[in-house]
Amino acid sequence: MNFTGVIPILATPFHDDESFDAESMTRLVGLMRRIGVDGVTVLGVLGEANRLGDNERERVIRTAVDAAIDLPVVAGASASGNRAACDLARMAESAGASAIMITPHAEAMPSDERVFGYFASITEATSLPVVLQDHPASSGVHMPLELMLRIVNELPAISCIKEEAVPTPPKIRALTTGMKKRRIPILTGLGALYGLFDLQAGSHGFNTGFAFPEVLMAMVDAANEENWDRVQSIYTRFLPLIVFEQQPGVAVRKEILRMRGAIADNRVREPGAPLNAAVRDQLAMLISTLLPDADLTAPTLI
Amino acid sequence: MNFTGVIPILATPFHDDESFDAESMTRLVGLMRRIGVDGVTVLGVLGEANRLGDNERERVIRTAVDAAIDLPVVAGASASGNRAACDLARMAESAGASAIMITPHAEAMPSDERVFGYFASITEATSLPVVLQDHPASSGVHMPLELMLRIVNELPAISCIKEEAVPTPPKIRALTTGMKKRRIPILTGLGALYGLFDLQAGSHGFNTGFAFPEVLMAMVDAANEENWDRVQSIYTRFLPLIVFEQQPGVAVRKEILRMRGAIADNRVREPGAPLNAAVRDQLAMLISTLLPDADLTAPTLI
Amino acid sequence: MNFTGVIPILATPFHDDESFDAESMTRLVGLMRRIGVDGVTVLGVLGEANRLGDNERERVIRTAVDAAIDLPVVAGASASGNRAACDLARMAESAGASAIMITPHAEAMPSDERVFGYFASITEATSLPVVLQDHPASSGVHMPLELMLRIVNELPAISCIKEEAVPTPPKIRALTTGMKKRRIPILTGLGALYGLFDLQAGSHGFNTGFAFPEVLMAMVDAANEENWDRVQSIYTRFLPLIVFEQQPGVAVRKEILRMRGAIADNRVREPGAPLNAAVRDQLAMLISTLLPDADLTAPTLI
Amino acid sequence: MNFTGVIPILATPFHDDESFDAESMTRLVGLMRRIGVDGVTVLGVLGEANRLGDNERERVIRTAVDAAIDLPVVAGASASGNRAACDLARMAESAGASAIMITPHAEAMPSDERVFGYFASITEATSLPVVLQDHPASSGVHMPLELMLRIVNELPAISCIKEEAVPTPPKIRALTTGMKKRRIPILTGLGALYGLFDLQAGSHGFNTGFAFPEVLMAMVDAANEENWDRVQSIYTRFLPLIVFEQQPGVAVRKEILRMRGAIADNRVREPGAPLNAAVRDQLAMLISTLLPDADLTAPTLI
Repeated sequence: MNFTGVIPILATPFHDDESFDAESMTRLVGLMRRIGVDGVTVLGVLGEANRLGDNERERVIRTAVDAAIDLPVVAGASASGNRAACDLARMAESAGASAIMITPHAEAMPSDERVFGYFASITEATSLPVVLQDHPASSGVHMPLELMLRIVNELPAISCIKEEAVPTPPKIRALTTGMKKRRIPILTGLGALYGLFDLQAGSHGFNTGFAFPEVLMAMVDAANEENWDRVQSIYTRFLPLIVFEQQPGVAVRKEILRMRGAIADNRVREPGAPLNAAVRDQLAMLISTLLPDADLTAPTLI
Repeated sequence: MNFTGVIPILATPFHDDESFDAESMTRLVGLMRRIGVDGVTVLGVLGEANRLGDNERERVIRTAVDAAIDLPVVAGASASGNRAACDLARMAESAGASAIMITPHAEAMPSDERVFGYFASITEATSLPVVLQDHPASSGVHMPLELMLRIVNELPAISCIKEEAVPTPPKIRALTTGMKKRRIPILTGLGALYGLFDLQAGSHGFNTGFAFPEVLMAMVDAANEENWDRVQSIYTRFLPLIVFEQQPGVAVRKEILRMRGAIADNRVREPGAPLNAAVRDQLAMLISTLLPDADLTAPTLI
Repeated sequence: MNFTGVIPILATPFHDDESFDAESMTRLVGLMRRIGVDGVTVLGVLGEANRLGDNERERVIRTAVDAAIDLPVVAGASASGNRAACDLARMAESAGASAIMITPHAEAMPSDERVFGYFASITEATSLPVVLQDHPASSGVHMPLELMLRIVNELPAISCIKEEAVPTPPKIRALTTGMKKRRIPILTGLGALYGLFDLQAGSHGFNTGFAFPEVLMAMVDAANEENWDRVQSIYTRFLPLIVFEQQPGVAVRKEILRMRGAIADNRVREPGAPLNAAVRDQLAMLISTLLPDADLTAPTLI
Repeated sequence: MNFTGVIPILATPFHDDESFDAESMTRLVGLMRRIGVDGVTVLGVLGEANRLGDNERERVIRTAVDAAIDLPVVAGASASGNRAACDLARMAESAGASAIMITPHAEAMPSDERVFGYFASITEATSLPVVLQDHPASSGVHMPLELMLRIVNELPAISCIKEEAVPTPPKIRALTTGMKKRRIPILTGLGALYGLFDLQAGSHGFNTGFAFPEVLMAMVDAANEENWDRVQSIYTRFLPLIVFEQQPGVAVRKEILRMRGAIADNRVREPGAPLNAAVRDQLAMLISTLLPDADLTAPTLI
């Protein structure tokens, strides 16, 4: 697995009664395959992983792996204790995941040493490559550059950085410059909010939940060709939707996936806020102006 | 189940490799039975519940229930989503728990309405009585008096309040005065740090991890007899140990339980801090001055 | 004062040694007058108010008021105690401010009643109108809808809401619907990140630090004419800059103001991060593509 | 100035209208002189420093210095920007303070380098010795051992550590062991809650607001004579009051100072909670059982 390009974070579809909707998950993965992404990630924040029991997590991974066929599946496996995270990592491995994504857990007494130990113990527990997620806004953990470089240097299983500590462009640059002994790809998230600037700074692509990954793929392709005018032009065109989507709450993204025919229901697990009717109307209007007459259920040509 | 008196919060014993030590759990519950407590609670913060997988949680409850015989077992069943909490609650019920303890989960956008909905959904999911835990320091959720009274009034399954929002005495009084339609017992926790003052304020006992519950039982008995001199005298005598024990980290309490013969190892799951050698010496010295020549493995006469 | 349209939040200019640069402040206010904004706000978060002493705050207000001539000046006057906030409010009044902006201060024990009391005491201390700022990300205070409506209804001095609790559009709608007894304008901030959606939801304009207020003025004008295509088109065109600017840290905005000839130096007070060289290059490139050949020191025609 | 022994943190007395009560401050310092403490600290958290304007802070320092005669006065001078802290430090110096107390300020992006720079800039701004306060619960800043040792080693003006990061005993030991190049005294605070254990771990005394400093002085004297039985016996006797006092909110301590004749009113600045009547009764009862028939206005013989 390469960890470059576009690896969407998938929502976890639920039926109206909040039970897992495996059929929608299969359809969602299928849409991603048709779009041609480089992999998919399940059980991130967008996947409402923290609202799932362990058995449900396993079902989500197995369903995604089955549907993905040859597409790599990355599984979120963070937990609040090292051992629980290792158990999740082993479960993900046996369920067929190609990699795991790990974010450190906030502790009462922050300690760089313990964060390192957390990653070390997980990389010992499985043979899977690990995506190191740096997202202080959700984790509460601020990883200094030195700590991240140490983790990359000393733990060969760490195979990708998902950089989401704002402002991201300077941190991407500092990581890129700092990785002297061992170089691994850096992807960015945050709904691609800073996509243009992250690519300029050296990001290798996206690992995020934006519901039109084909937009991000076109940006990455253009960046690889150093066609920065095209990157900026695509980014600018879709930025209103990127901004709209990354508002707090996952209901907006689920609604787009519903509009795309991928999932049956935009249901979010309580206490997550359901989709507000006025917000849904704003979203529908926005999409109709950005992609007039488009068949949303098919990959969109950018 | 009565929810008055002393219901200790139990540590979850681990072997040296951090795996669950069921034999120690059985011995720990046995010690509590011999001491004569009114019930035990598993899977609280002290029980390192957040570092356990779902299967491990079930094993902890089943082990405790088996060992408890006729002693009621309360199981912590809080989770970050309503449905996951309901699933844990149902699991606890089928594993034989007599009640569950629930603390609300911090959300990005706090909302009293959603906290109420959280408790409402859980009480619908099981037929078990529920202990409502109010501990902002660990949950990040500040429940106003009005919200707590509404929960008590409208949800008959709520059977006890575990009040740990400092300063506790005025909140205990306000709750006591405010519960007009329905009165339920109030227990306090926080390692019994404010035990004397909580009892003066009307607390019905303790639901906490202090490793000598017999001390708290003697205080409650004296309070019930309105022998406040005796309450204060017991409290004062053991307060240095109460203070020492409630320092952050669960290793200190596990070490006392080890000294009491209840658990084999004071091991804490990573990234929890292990017992510091100097701290262990301080603890041993302190206990030897408070309880000289005592057989710690037997219930202590206060 | 009207509290509709565009009221920019001003940076506080510093010399290279971090001392207050009154001359730049005068020039900055002058640029805003030439642009034709509806007022200016000093001593917000962007104004680094929390890094200034009381005497410096007074100097900032007096300098802005002197330069503003007939343009209204709103002064941030939040503090961590009611009395200190009242003292700041009175100082702002005697220094010639036309209004004050107040955000509640996080307390160890959150209480809607105390937040109300905070606003009540400030409105009693001065005769100035008050802008109620709702920005949980910086204040740590989540104000429920009911509390905000009560503040608006019971305190006639509250003259405007600055709504910055994400997602903003549904809260703007709920406030608009809820203000039955008394209606006051709602402005939005957050660097205008959600500007299109906020205007659609009923916002009356902007109170934020985006360094090209003429862009926001053109959006508000178009919205007032219900020319939503034009609103969206302006928003889309400048959104990359809006996104870039609202990254954490005030150095980026200061650099734009420097490029616009308004302030002499982009210096930020320690421990605020200074402008990163690569970030400065990204910014310069971005502006040159958005506004090629423009004279940035003059109001820009949109 | 020595920075060993007992240096009480003083409350800031207010009249009923929340204005500064200089006469009570003079009387309060007078009581401390008669008790024979080693210095006093004004403008800490207990001093409600964050609820005072800059002019009020200066008045508090000048009043304390005038009343203190030959007793050293330490002034809190923390601020949220380096320059504002330097300005406060210079003000404290010119107002006659003997030392300043500094705690780092939480930043959006924590950085050990910036915390070091904060202390460095302040020690350059004045010639006063500096007490380095380590109290994450109020500051939100967790200083690793290595950072604290670097600050001590490289900044000769740092003259004392006020250690309040729980659990304190192991950190006191680690600091003591780690200070190889330069040794400075370590005092502890937290209302002396862990006083016995802190002294056992090597603390040189107390810098805290407990309203009976003579109790702490007796403990320090006994510790210096290695009479640990006496330390423990004093600690145990007064621990119920120590525990009661350190509950959140400063009203309890102000009430004791009022009972001691030192201040006229227990008034706390809004939005601080006023003294609850039932809490006041608990306090009065507790003091009457601990110190029956004592003249509280005179130094108490322990």
